[in-house]
Amino acid sequence: MQNYRFLIAYDGTRYHGWEHKKDVVTIQGKIESVLSLMAGEEVRINGAGRTDAGVHARAMVASGPVPTDKTPEEIRDYMNHYLPDDICILEVTPAAERFHARFNAKGKHYRYTIYCGRLKPVFDRKYVWTLDEGETIDCERMRKAAAYLVGEHDFKSFCGNKQMKKSTVRKLFAIDIKEDGDYVILDFHGAGFLQNMVRILTGTLVEVGAGRMEPAYMEEVLTGRCRQLAGPTAPPQGLCLMQVDYEKK
Amino acid sequence: MQNYRFLIAYDGTRYHGWEHKKDVVTIQGKIESVLSLMAGEEVRINGAGRTDAGVHARAMVASGPVPTDKTPEEIRDYMNHYLPDDICILEVTPAAERFHARFNAKGKHYRYTIYCGRLKPVFDRKYVWTLDEGETIDCERMRKAAAYLVGEHDFKSFCGNKQMKKSTVRKLFAIDIKEDGDYVILDFHGAGFLQNMVRILTGTLVEVGAGRMEPAYMEEVLTGRCRQLAGPTAPPQGLCLMQVDYEKK
Repeated sequence: MQNYRFLIAYDGTRYHGWEHKKDVVTIQGKIESVLSLMAGEEVRINGAGRTDAGVHARAMVASGPVPTDKTPEEIRDYMNHYLPDDICILEVTPAAERFHARFNAKGKHYRYTIYCGRLKPVFDRKYVWTLDEGETIDCERMRKAAAYLVGEHDFKSFCGNKQMKKSTVRKLFAIDIKEDGDYVILDFHGAGFLQNMVRILTGTLVEVGAGRMEPAYMEEVLTGRCRQLAGPTAPPQGLCLMQVDYEKK
Repeated sequence: MQNYRFLIAYDGTRYHGWEHKKDVVTIQGKIESVLSLMAGEEVRINGAGRTDAGVHARAMVASGPVPTDKTPEEIRDYMNHYLPDDICILEVTPAAERFHARFNAKGKHYRYTIYCGRLKPVFDRKYVWTLDEGETIDCERMRKAAAYLVGEHDFKSFCGNKQMKKSTVRKLFAIDIKEDGDYVILDFHGAGFLQNMVRILTGTLVEVGAGRMEPAYMEEVLTGRCRQLAGPTAPPQGLCLMQVDYEKK
């Protein structure tokens, strides 16, 4: 059966996250229902990662075999026709039989957008974290803290899953922090991320930016391997999965 | 009692339009409730225009006297604190006693945004009109049609109110049409607009752009003074009030 690769954009506001779950509406669940409708039998796909409830994606990658006679373009158009307005299939491409969106992923790029303006951001309020009124953050301090976090570390302090039994070692390639008017944009590039990791990294960097933590304290947070040492989990709506990287053939 | 001028941004998605109406949620109604709460008595304001249900504004202007000891900044902050996320008071300024947001307005700028791409616009779907799949529009044809519409005309054919008894003569200063990737942006500058006028102008220009009407036919539509001659009313969510102009003192 032909294996396919799906490139997907979604506004996560209305969903209980990416991953298929019983009794709640998820993005994977919606997509699988439409593919199953098209194929006339149950179809399951695998996402490159599991975004939390309320988190968005501009380019999630998923894969799975689909029994159909349609062309990739026809599959894409069929899916977009039946999917709601807040999920869009950008591309459907035939993939090698062994291609698996999660196991083959070499890296991911997440973007976290913070709004620091005095006035409420009416038109992008669902895509940013609006800091409390009067809260200011110093990007230079955040960059200093980020320098401690980049690299291969045990990120147990930045893991939202208390029952995590597997390794919490991950490799962060880069954290780029830029200011754009009233916005601060954090770009995280890494080989892989733990549950809530980008949101906890962001919440911690904001503590540093606001002056409530020192940049050098990041070393203690990493070596302490304890969730309580890090900052709060930033809210989901500011987070967006921007890209998943695979090895070029 | 001090008269004030309010500059307001709102996402109109959830509202039954700007104007105060009984038993439905409107933007004017929300703002008046908050001002009344602040003043401890009923406060009414006047908007520069009445946007339809689902239409947005980046800079609506309203005015009205408010009994309060607060400074303009304190009024603004109080209002923003109690207003929902999709309404933001950008500015509160003391105004001359006789200033009236509607009667003193000299012109308005409305923007209509059309999305013509093949794939659904996930993140701005509430702020654009997504044309039917495969529909293409020719901006050069639309500009030719717009040239007939600019100027002072009887716009009865472009008026959504069948019971309109007053003059339907209005002056359009300019219609600017520009392409930006998958988007077509129509900017309407005029001294005043009839009910649904920008949406009917847009619906008609899209008929021309799609080749279903000829640019020169606009003359007939204007002289015919009959709503049925014009094109359909474009959906509300693509429309945004960008600016209201007043005489400089």
